[in-house]
Amino acid sequence: MRILVINGPNLNLLGRREPDVYGHASLEEVNAFIRGYFKKTEIDFFQSNHEGAILDKLHAASEVYDGIVINPGALTHYAYALHDAIKAIRPPVMEVHLSNIHARESFRTQSVVAPVARGTISGLGPYGYVLAIRALVHFAKKGN
Amino acid sequence: MRILVINGPNLNLLGRREPDVYGHASLEEVNAFIRGYFKKTEIDFFQSNHEGAILDKLHAASEVYDGIVINPGALTHYAYALHDAIKAIRPPVMEVHLSNIHARESFRTQSVVAPVARGTISGLGPYGYVLAIRALVHFAKKGN
Amino acid sequence: MRILVINGPNLNLLGRREPDVYGHASLEEVNAFIRGYFKKTEIDFFQSNHEGAILDKLHAASEVYDGIVINPGALTHYAYALHDAIKAIRPPVMEVHLSNIHARESFRTQSVVAPVARGTISGLGPYGYVLAIRALVHFAKKGN
Amino acid sequence: MRILVINGPNLNLLGRREPDVYGHASLEEVNAFIRGYFKKTEIDFFQSNHEGAILDKLHAASEVYDGIVINPGALTHYAYALHDAIKAIRPPVMEVHLSNIHARESFRTQSVVAPVARGTISGLGPYGYVLAIRALVHFAKKGN
Amino acid sequence: MRILVINGPNLNLLGRREPDVYGHASLEEVNAFIRGYFKKTEIDFFQSNHEGAILDKLHAASEVYDGIVINPGALTHYAYALHDAIKAIRPPVMEVHLSNIHARESFRTQSVVAPVARGTISGLGPYGYVLAIRALVHFAKKGN
Amino acid sequence: MRILVINGPNLNLLGRREPDVYGHASLEEVNAFIRGYFKKTEIDFFQSNHEGAILDKLHAASEVYDGIVINPGALTHYAYALHDAIKAIRPPVMEVHLSNIHARESFRTQSVVAPVARGTISGLGPYGYVLAIRALVHFAKKGN
Amino acid sequence: MRILVINGPNLNLLGRREPDVYGHASLEEVNAFIRGYFKKTEIDFFQSNHEGAILDKLHAASEVYDGIVINPGALTHYAYALHDAIKAIRPPVMEVHLSNIHARESFRTQSVVAPVARGTISGLGPYGYVLAIRALVHFAKKGN
Amino acid sequence: MRILVINGPNLNLLGRREPDVYGHASLEEVNAFIRGYFKKTEIDFFQSNHEGAILDKLHAASEVYDGIVINPGALTHYAYALHDAIKAIRPPVMEVHLSNIHARESFRTQSVVAPVARGTISGLGPYGYVLAIRALVHFAKKGN
Amino acid sequence: MRILVINGPNLNLLGRREPDVYGHASLEEVNAFIRGYFKKTEIDFFQSNHEGAILDKLHAASEVYDGIVINPGALTHYAYALHDAIKAIRPPVMEVHLSNIHARESFRTQSVVAPVARGTISGLGPYGYVLAIRALVHFAKKGN
Amino acid sequence: MRILVINGPNLNLLGRREPDVYGHASLEEVNAFIRGYFKKTEIDFFQSNHEGAILDKLHAASEVYDGIVINPGALTHYAYALHDAIKAIRPPVMEVHLSNIHARESFRTQSVVAPVARGTISGLGPYGYVLAIRALVHFAKKGN
Amino acid sequence: MRILVINGPNLNLLGRREPDVYGHASLEEVNAFIRGYFKKTEIDFFQSNHEGAILDKLHAASEVYDGIVINPGALTHYAYALHDAIKAIRPPVMEVHLSNIHARESFRTQSVVAPVARGTISGLGPYGYVLAIRALVHFAKKGN
Amino acid sequence: MRILVINGPNLNLLGRREPDVYGHASLEEVNAFIRGYFKKTEIDFFQSNHEGAILDKLHAASEVYDGIVINPGALTHYAYALHDAIKAIRPPVMEVHLSNIHARESFRTQSVVAPVARGTISGLGPYGYVLAIRALVHFAKKGN
Repeated sequence: MRILVINGPNLNLLGRREPDVYGHASLEEVNAFIRGYFKKTEIDFFQSNHEGAILDKLHAASEVYDGIVINPGALTHYAYALHDAIKAIRPPVMEVHLSNIHARESFRTQSVVAPVARGTISGLGPYGYVLAIRALVHFAKKGN
Repeated sequence: MRILVINGPNLNLLGRREPDVYGHASLEEVNAFIRGYFKKTEIDFFQSNHEGAILDKLHAASEVYDGIVINPGALTHYAYALHDAIKAIRPPVMEVHLSNIHARESFRTQSVVAPVARGTISGLGPYGYVLAIRALVHFAKKGN
Repeated sequence: MRILVINGPNLNLLGRREPDVYGHASLEEVNAFIRGYFKKTEIDFFQSNHEGAILDKLHAASEVYDGIVINPGALTHYAYALHDAIKAIRPPVMEVHLSNIHARESFRTQSVVAPVARGTISGLGPYGYVLAIRALVHFAKKGN
Repeated sequence: MRILVINGPNLNLLGRREPDVYGHASLEEVNAFIRGYFKKTEIDFFQSNHEGAILDKLHAASEVYDGIVINPGALTHYAYALHDAIKAIRPPVMEVHLSNIHARESFRTQSVVAPVARGTISGLGPYGYVLAIRALVHFAKKGN
Repeated sequence: MRILVINGPNLNLLGRREPDVYGHASLEEVNAFIRGYFKKTEIDFFQSNHEGAILDKLHAASEVYDGIVINPGALTHYAYALHDAIKAIRPPVMEVHLSNIHARESFRTQSVVAPVARGTISGLGPYGYVLAIRALVHFAKKGN
Repeated sequence: MRILVINGPNLNLLGRREPDVYGHASLEEVNAFIRGYFKKTEIDFFQSNHEGAILDKLHAASEVYDGIVINPGALTHYAYALHDAIKAIRPPVMEVHLSNIHARESFRTQSVVAPVARGTISGLGPYGYVLAIRALVHFAKKGN
Repeated sequence: MRILVINGPNLNLLGRREPDVYGHASLEEVNAFIRGYFKKTEIDFFQSNHEGAILDKLHAASEVYDGIVINPGALTHYAYALHDAIKAIRPPVMEVHLSNIHARESFRTQSVVAPVARGTISGLGPYGYVLAIRALVHFAKKGN
Repeated sequence: MRILVINGPNLNLLGRREPDVYGHASLEEVNAFIRGYFKKTEIDFFQSNHEGAILDKLHAASEVYDGIVINPGALTHYAYALHDAIKAIRPPVMEVHLSNIHARESFRTQSVVAPVARGTISGLGPYGYVLAIRALVHFAKKGN
Repeated sequence: MRILVINGPNLNLLGRREPDVYGHASLEEVNAFIRGYFKKTEIDFFQSNHEGAILDKLHAASEVYDGIVINPGALTHYAYALHDAIKAIRPPVMEVHLSNIHARESFRTQSVVAPVARGTISGLGPYGYVLAIRALVHFAKKGN
Repeated sequence: MRILVINGPNLNLLGRREPDVYGHASLEEVNAFIRGYFKKTEIDFFQSNHEGAILDKLHAASEVYDGIVINPGALTHYAYALHDAIKAIRPPVMEVHLSNIHARESFRTQSVVAPVARGTISGLGPYGYVLAIRALVHFAKKGN
Repeated sequence: MRILVINGPNLNLLGRREPDVYGHASLEEVNAFIRGYFKKTEIDFFQSNHEGAILDKLHAASEVYDGIVINPGALTHYAYALHDAIKAIRPPVMEVHLSNIHARESFRTQSVVAPVARGTISGLGPYGYVLAIRALVHFAKKGN
Repeated sequence: MRILVINGPNLNLLGRREPDVYGHASLEEVNAFIRGYFKKTEIDFFQSNHEGAILDKLHAASEVYDGIVINPGALTHYAYALHDAIKAIRPPVMEVHLSNIHARESFRTQSVVAPVARGTISGLGPYGYVLAIRALVHFAKKGN
């Protein structure tokens, strides 16, 4: 089984950006943390600050991966093109947020991605990615 | 470790109510499904259609459990008393929704519980409870 | 044929509460008034100030009654759990309001129950219950 | 006793227009269906696609009829002139909708007519007109 | 100088409709009252419950009258076609309301006509028409 | 008969401020223009840029004048204290605006004064004051 | 093939009304302009300032025409009865606006017709009708 | 004189719940504190997390108490049934909030109870109950 | 201990203005009524219709008084400068309203003062000032 | 004459993405379909998922093309930078949408591009591009 | 060159009021700080808590000063009379805010002054006045 | 000291785009104009139409520059990723707008960048960049 983990704008700054909210681990450390939980699952990682690059990646991933985990960063709140892309591709997409977006600024409570995601996990830090991958593996085995 | 799983109004009808949305398993079957995933964790289940009874249970649980998973059903969207109760008690509370509440009627997109939950998982059916418990176990071991 | 009439919060005060709006008959008198119109139909009555008790009753009624008439009182305007319960059960549910809810305070113009009701009757006082039962009998005979 | 039943815009298309929502009976058949329920009550029918013609009819009906049933069609949602006319005339006016307007597009949830109607009945198809006339007869006999 | 006074829907009911709000004089009496104030000005009156007929009249009046006074009745609040017609014709149009529309239901506070009117007078009963004509005469003499 | 004309903030700049909107006459010239229309009526004028001073004046005027004309300037849109003062005093108050406030910025469409005014006249330039005084004289003679 | 072109309120004033926005050609000239583009297609024209008359025409056209082009004028923004009529009839309906309604007053950005139109063309002046008819011809030949 | 003090959901947690906001005294200690201020007034206390139980209590209290003090907790913000109950019963009801609800989350600024309360006191901690009882005693003696 | 009681715009009219809402006592009588309750507390009174004068007074009071009671009148609803002044000064400020502002026009439900007040008391007439001073005395003695 | 057709995010997936909404033809097939209609017009095509790349292209196109057709995909609803770019460049820009954006999710009813487009065509599938080019050719020949 | 610096309500409290937000310097010290930057420019200072006094000052300044800097304090958010005054006078007006008004309470994000200011500078503390004066000097020399 | 000036989408068109609003100088000329004011400060310039490229640049600049000036163009109004990036990096960021964004279309009044900027300067044309750099230099020397 093959999973793609996509991180959106500013998530390359993990560990340096508001550590009280996002933790002290760098993105590389988070990715290693995630991989440590999965022996049999092939996991690729992709980060970009470019909405267009994420769209290109999602399109390309459509025939390659069995599931996708995405943390869209701030694109969550306005990037309807991401909404359309997720709706358009074949593999199920899990939406993950490191922090509890409902406990922060009001603009963060709207997700244009959530209506087309297979499921959403928020507020659990890096462990949220682990659970999202578990969900994808679970449904791949058990069916929907 | 001891976990309490609370289900709110109408969730006792699981399996009979809109099976296309909520699946065919009854609440008892869902509870058994959840328990099957955890050997070492003590899990209790509580369901009520009474907001007040859920508040009483949350208060009583404060000193007894190490973590709580709650699917507040439709109370999610208006029961600010639930918001206050979750904020008031000691153990972390995970919010779970069986369906993707963002892909349904617009009134379901507002959660008055989410801002005070430790984390939120939605759209993953009964497996969402399993992941929520995993998260509680994870953070109990690793710290927050 | 068997019909259940449910009255929600504060309707036990009928006759004492704002008689200009709700009339001078007590709930018992209203129930007798209703029963007087129906010889062959079995009619049960239930009143509660507890949202949870009404939900329990609706669930229990699902396999017992051929139709339900509900006047949810002020729950009409916020109790989404009632919305879900009505949607979840088998018998058709008629929504009744004694007064014209559109001619009063603005918060009374929203009904979270109406979208899932078989039909709605408002502004006709106790006679509204009679018409609602007639509608249930009519559709039971003629089909939908 | 003399009753006028008014149908607004597009209701002349009954039977041809969205039969899943409005049924297969033509307006003439619906009128015959209604008349079949009342032996002693004189019932006249009027349909127009012209707001102005309905206003003229309401004014003329003021001294002629003992009660009026109106299904304003889409005028329900914006024709404040209808609101004013109903408020201005003598006989009580019952508002009827064939379908459950609360379970359809959001613009249909607002009725500018409801605040001035004697009562409202919705969701019961042609039988709604029958119940509305019964209510007018009932209150004419019993007083308000 | 030639002036046209247009009254919209339900104003033919003047004297019979809510006399506390609109006074006891009939439309004919109001028109006579207005005419009594002007010796040298030719005044024509037109009333219709049909938005379309008012539009036709406005178009026809464009080349005939030197000024128009309109009380659009409830069309004030939604008839954008009236807005467009007033904007399209040559003579200045004064908007008149018998009652103080700002002291009544909230839907009456919006006027889609006001932005294209030469001026607006409200709350002065039939005397408002007199002042509106005076204004038209004044500006015809003095220029704008 | 004794009338007070009150002008609010910035109206002392008349003639200098946006002459396209407000005309080229100074406030003194406008006052003279108004006085020219009335031989038998005693008219006093008051202008202030201070909301508090206008309130003081309205209070003092309560027992002295038979009618008040007020152009509140921008206070129209937010000064609820003006609303309360007008409601509290004895003489009728006419609201006047030089320009058509409905054809300008959207914030100008709300008047917190209008609901308590005897009537409102807008868009007629200085002649609007003349008509407002006529209305006060008219109603003083004829009764309301 | 047979096409009906309907123009709504105030479009009979074309050429005289705001020529900067709507051009200098009269409605007759516009109709001749349109007809000049189509040799083999039978095109009828209808204009009315009466919403009701347009509804009547749409109903009558249902069995006669293969396609309809409508420029609803200001009815676009509030006439839900037009929405219902277009939804109810058989032939496809193209919505046309002469001007770019999105570049004008904010009330013009809402179209209650667009959701039920086959397609919408705006901003292209009289040529928009030509393109709308081309679209109807195209889809009649090619299927939808 | 006899007074009932009602505390709503989560107020049984006083002293344990957010002590920075609500203080360190338990509900029992608060009740004792209140009682300490009144020698001649009989004061009963009631707390429940069940909206329905509070409604039942209010109904029962109608003929027993001379005044009621209620701190509805989070029910303040959505429980319209409480609104109706307070409106329906005989004794005056004072609304009390421990904290300044206007200085906290925005959802706390709406009170559905306030429009039917005799008066409201907020932000004064337990002393607010004392003042509310004083007000009830004051008005019972002096009349309203 | 030294207390300042500030009354805002139009409160000098007490006794003359809407006595049904505000009572028949003049402001001087109300002040005497208040003083009658306090023997040991020095109480000064200040009233102004000028927002700026109230701001000046609040600033000057900062070092002189131990507590301030303010009834801002209509300034309550829009005077953010009052908000800032109360936040800026040293002594605690109690907000008092004679009437129940939540049971009146909708614009009165917003208070820009409440978020920065020590507490709020409304609906209790002149006795509200007495309770507000009691609260200030209470907290001065007991600490916050 | 030289025309540029720009397609925005996700339109490279045409034929694979929601074929019920967007049809089965790929973007290449759609482009060939368009070109088939024009012999004398030079047409270039550009697609990108990157808003920035589309902006760059629009800037570069300013001096090269005589007209531009753009289907901005989901950028339609939020990309104000596209709004600014279209306003800034020389050639007229036609906005095209394959589907009827007014008959889908509510977020699709807002177009930030429409106010600056020369015209808009929606709901006509690939044929909409053909009509858009025809419009550009038409206006290039006839002038605006 | 002659510049007037106006400070609105509560700014006389600088140094004492929320020093974390506004700094520790008094208004006199801030004024001295500003003057220290300008040798050749004549700078006058004015502070008032009275909206009316600020309006009077602005009017008087119209013919005296070459530029005005205003920090309207809380008047920024509601004083439309200030908006009108700034629009009415001759010299350019720079709007200055000490703190970043966009990072504070939501009511502070609306400025009714900004649309008529020559420019706006916020978030830079007292140095913002210096830059605002520099801008006025710059444009006086270079033209607009 | 080292400063980076970032210009967002469409600002490369300066001089060609709406010169009435943005002036006739090209971006290169504006940059030269800015540099001319600073002898001792090292200033780099960056322009991109790609939101992602601006994010990359901001991240890279975090350790290199002592201050950043950004004119985000239309990204100002929706690019929450920019908000997050500015919050995440080390150097202070000044927001600059050439035109007065509050005096233009309503969508331009919202800035998602302003809440996280060190300060904002708008309406001063290219000179706004100069003042922004001065502010950065000032605070670097004096501390915050």
